[in-house]
Order: sequence, then structure tokens, then C-alpha cells
Amino acid sequence: MKSRAVVLSSLILSLTLILAGCTNNQTPPANQTPTAAQPAATTTAATDPLPSWNDGPAKQAVLDFVKTTTDKASPKFVAPEDRIATFDQDGTTWVEHPIYSQVLFAFDRVAEMAPQHPEWKTKMPFKAIVTGDKEAMAKFTTKDLEIIAMTTHTGMTAEAFGPMVKDWMAKAKHPKFDKPYPQMVYQPMLEVMKYLRDNGYRTYIVTGGGQDFVRTYALQVYGIPPEQIIGSALDTQYAYAKDGQGILMRDPKLLLNNNGVGKAEDIYLFIGKRPKAAFGNTDGDRQMLEYTQASGGTSLEMLVLHDDTTREFAYGPAQGLPDTKVGTFPQSLYDEAEAKGWTVISMKNDWKQIFSWEK
Amino acid sequence: MKSRAVVLSSLILSLTLILAGCTNNQTPPANQTPTAAQPAATTTAATDPLPSWNDGPAKQAVLDFVKTTTDKASPKFVAPEDRIATFDQDGTTWVEHPIYSQVLFAFDRVAEMAPQHPEWKTKMPFKAIVTGDKEAMAKFTTKDLEIIAMTTHTGMTAEAFGPMVKDWMAKAKHPKFDKPYPQMVYQPMLEVMKYLRDNGYRTYIVTGGGQDFVRTYALQVYGIPPEQIIGSALDTQYAYAKDGQGILMRDPKLLLNNNGVGKAEDIYLFIGKRPKAAFGNTDGDRQMLEYTQASGGTSLEMLVLHDDTTREFAYGPAQGLPDTKVGTFPQSLYDEAEAKGWTVISMKNDWKQIFSWEK
Repeated sequence: MKSRAVVLSSLILSLTLILAGCTNNQTPPANQTPTAAQPAATTTAATDPLPSWNDGPAKQAVLDFVKTTTDKASPKFVAPEDRIATFDQDGTTWVEHPIYSQVLFAFDRVAEMAPQHPEWKTKMPFKAIVTGDKEAMAKFTTKDLEIIAMTTHTGMTAEAFGPMVKDWMAKAKHPKFDKPYPQMVYQPMLEVMKYLRDNGYRTYIVTGGGQDFVRTYALQVYGIPPEQIIGSALDTQYAYAKDGQGILMRDPKLLLNNNGVGKAEDIYLFIGKRPKAAFGNTDGDRQMLEYTQASGGTSLEMLVLHDDTTREFAYGPAQGLPDTKVGTFPQSLYDEAEAKGWTVISMKNDWKQIFSWEK
Repeated sequence: MKSRAVVLSSLILSLTLILAGCTNNQTPPANQTPTAAQPAATTTAATDPLPSWNDGPAKQAVLDFVKTTTDKASPKFVAPEDRIATFDQDGTTWVEHPIYSQVLFAFDRVAEMAPQHPEWKTKMPFKAIVTGDKEAMAKFTTKDLEIIAMTTHTGMTAEAFGPMVKDWMAKAKHPKFDKPYPQMVYQPMLEVMKYLRDNGYRTYIVTGGGQDFVRTYALQVYGIPPEQIIGSALDTQYAYAKDGQGILMRDPKLLLNNNGVGKAEDIYLFIGKRPKAAFGNTDGDRQMLEYTQASGGTSLEMLVLHDDTTREFAYGPAQGLPDTKVGTFPQSLYDEAEAKGWTVISMKNDWKQIFSWEK
């Protein structure tokens, strides 16, 4: 876990991506065609646990996995206590473009905190955000971004942070879809989560984003309780409030950088065993999928490919899709998926419906 | 979490205690009298969820807590998702004297590994253990003990460690009771755990001992799955095996020192909310109980006092019991318990039966 010693958190790395993310051209790839919902052929609407999925290898992979691992007569039966499924969040279970929601939260927090910090009017890096100076923001150093992240995410009690996120979630809207972020979740993934849970699997979010950030809404959005959210985590410091009560203060120090190798390491730290199913969409999910597959027996590894510029976004650069620094799906990951039998989900072809509010 | 930066793990601290623990005089306190099992007056045997407990304030505190927090009509009703109970292990759910089981495991591991390390015959600190030189062991430095801990607990894959512990658990016997350690568990605490779970509580072990150590047997011994074991944790490093499979190597670096303030901090890290009930027996559990009580509403905080030299051990130094460096229950903790309304469990008076095999 060398990465844990690195000062820059994934949150900060996220912040560094803001400009790249904002200015990324969402050029549709040459081979992109309008989406046509396909009729479900292998299942009927009444019994289909995955109605937002088109029939095809991706949907079938989920159905086959559940059938195989929950059939006591199968040699690949998985005992109930070992039924663990892990999901990356950004780009896997909800929208991550043009930038991660948590980055927008941090910037909005600066604006919200500004009245209590009149000095920010003239003090960088805050001045750039407060005045909306995009040119200055483009010149943010790593140190600037670290200051923004730590200023907006620490210095309060553990309990005080959650309501800040909840408030923001209730009012902030996605720049493209003009909907609150809790509605930016992918309906097909909600169906997979429910289908897995209905078959005895425990579903976990395993995100490079902030654990405490995601915990504030995950039960409502995903039906996943706080203890099943594994994410990048800041240190806390035990202290006493004025009334003598034991409290935890959020500390400007990264404890867990839950990305890449950190995902495999933290899954072990939190769960103590390997998942049997893992879902991701970027290079940061590679080791989680490898670690899952190494559990032996039947396992399920899936990667979401954002190839639907009409209904969502299109980026890779795998398969000739536009390059991006936010949620990069490199060709090397695509090649590893092919070589290892992981399933790549084409949003364009495999998902009949992306959001619950689409009709 | 300043403690996390400290090089010495709680495991190492445990090791430093071995001599103190081994030489501790288990002098019974002046006020100690033989135990007499008392008849259950408030409950009948058929319905009593806590048959190994004598009637009294400790048993009543558990019964009242469960009744109050699971009664929907009560203003102190606790929603099912918030029903969390945390248990320290050593000295709270099983025997910790004369020394922690994990310390014996480490020393036995040295003996077991010795044939592959002929240099240990002449190389300290291993030489002292291999030759049983107690005088030399008495002079172990902190550095010696760190070497022993890291040598015996790291350098293997995460998966390889568990079977080592399981093998040891199956054959090692407690020096006083001559029983395997899984039989050193306190029957009254097993009943409390089951009673809480039967009423919708999720039970966690929150131990200063090694998380991976406890995870190997906790399901069998306590009915608690690996993901509900929070303990001191070593770092791991993601790597690739020769066959290309993703593996985790155990690294000689402490990631979480789950003791004292670390217990409150790690409960938040793993669960994301405060417990409603917490059980401990030492200074290292103080903050866990404080943090639990600060959850507001009805909560339950209990401390096991080892005052039964006849059936188990007697040590404090609270209440005039013999002092010890293994599982210290200081008078200051006893005073805090009295001031804050925490319940102190007298093993002598509150527990009708300590071990399941007692008849």
C-alpha cells in the first residue's frame, strides 16, 4: 500500500482533473450509431430481473453467474457467506462526466464557506473559485488543489460532514442532465445489485471517491448501508467536545487511497475475503477485477464502456473512443478483459434504458 | 490517529507484556469469596435468553437495553439499521491471562519456523525462544519484539496466514485450563451476542489483537463473520503470483492500531456510525465506550471485571484487585464507569457459569 503514504489523495487527483474533464471534447466515435432499444428475447417482462438490459452476452453473463453460483447442485456453487459483489461507483453505477460529483461538491463548498472567509477574495487558490476565474483555475498547482480538498473536507466532526453532503446532494444538479445527482444512477446497475442481493449476495461500493461522501446517500440511492461502502478515507482524531462527549474530528491526512491496488487491499481489509463478482469501468478497477477472478471457481468481472454519446457520454480511449482524464478506460484494460474473459458492457448496446426517469 | 504512525503495533506491545503477564501474581483480593450460583429469580429457564447470568444489575441492564431499544412504542426505539453492538475480545469475550493467545501464537510460530532458520540457534532474539531461555527473553528490547512479531506475521500471502492460525488454534492449549483457545470463550458473552443478534443487532468484534488472526476463528467461535471483525491491521501489498494471479502480501507495517482512541476511529472507518452497545474490560476500551454513549438516546456500556480467581483470574488494579500489565482495568476506568452509568460486570457475582464446558 505504498500509495497510502502518498500525500495526494484520490480526491486531490480528482480535483486536478477538473479542467481536463471540463474541456474534454465528447466527440462521438466514428462507429457510433443511434441507440435502438432491443426486445428482450430470452426472458419475459414478468420474470426478467434485468428489464433495463438488452439481451446479449453482458446480460447473459449476469444471469449465468447467479444461476451457477446459487445452484446447490452446481460444482461452482458459492456458499452464502462468500457471496460478495463489489461495485466501483463513478462511471460504473452513476455518471462521472464531465467531472466527479465530489469535485463539484468541493468547489461549491468553497463558495459556501467564502462569506466566513473574506480573505479568500484576494487569496489564491480560493480567489479563483470565488470569482469564477477559469484561467486562474487552469493554473492551479497540486498544492492549491490539496488546500481546496482539505479545506472543504476536514476540520469538522465526523457527524457534521454528512449533512453538508446531503444538503448538496439535494440541490446540486448535473450540468448536462439538469437532475440531482441521486438521479444520475444507472438503472441497469441498480437492477444487477438488487438481483444479486435477492440471491444472497452482499453488495459493496468500492470507490476511489470519499468513503464518507458516498455513505451519506448510498442507502437511499443504492440500498447499500454505510458499512458496505469502502472508499478513500481521511484520518480522524478522537477528541472531547465541550460537554465531555467523545467525538471524531476529520483530519487533513489521507488514511486509505482506495484506487487501483488500494481497492484489492481495502477489500481485504474491510471484508477479509475476495469478492465473487466485481464491476468497474477504469484502470483504477483493474486490480479489483484481477483479485476477484483469482478467487477461483466461477466469478464475474464486468467493465462498463461509455460508448453512448447520445444518451450519456462516450470516452475511452479504448476501442477508438475519445480520450479522457476522467474515468479513463485504456485499450490495455480492454485487452486484458478480452484475454481474461471479463465482460465489457456497452452502454449503447447492452442497456435498453440508462436512467430510471427515461421514458 | 497519531497512534497509527507509531512504529510499535499493539501486537508488539502485547509481546512486551509477556513476561509481566507470565510472572504476574494472581493473588486473590481480600474481599474475594467463593462463588455461589444464584437462582434466576426474574426469568424462567425456559425463556431466559441469558441463562449463564445470575440475576442482578448487569443481567438486568442487558435485558432492559434490548427491551427498550426494540420496542417501537418506546421513545428510545433504535431503528434496525442502527443496531450495532461492539465487543472487545481479549478479556471481554475470552480469556486473556496469563498472556494474550496471539503472543503464544507468535512464539510457537518461531519454534515452528526454526528448522528453516538454522541461524536462529545463535541469533537473538530467536535464540532465546528456540532455546527457552527465559532470562534472555526477559531482556528483550522493543526492537527484538518487533522483529518477532513481524517475522511471524508477515512475508506470506493474506490467504496463507489464516491456515497457520487455524492450525495453531486446533492444537494450542491454555496453560491453566488445558483446553484449546476456542473453548476459552465466555459463555455469558456468547449468550449476550446471540440475544442481541436475535433482536436485530449486528455484533462486531473490535479488538486490539490482529484483525486477520481473529477472523480465522470468529465465525466458529462467536458466530461473527470476517467483515464484522475490526482489529489491528498490517498493511498489505498487491502483487502478482507466478501464474499471474492477483495476490496480497502481508507487509511488516502497521496500518491500524486498533486500541484506545483507535477503536473509536476504526469503528467509524468500518461502520460509519456509532454503536448502541459496547463491551470491554480495559483502558483500551475506554474511548469505545465513551463514543458509544455519545450516540445519544439509550445505549449500553459494559465492562468485565476479572474478580474470580477461583474460576478464572483476578486482576485490576481497580477495586483492590491485583495489578497487571495484561488487560489492565485501572481504578480511573472504574470511576468513569460509575460516573457515567456504565455497568461493571463482576465475573464472580454476575456470571453463573463462565465456560460452556463447566458443569
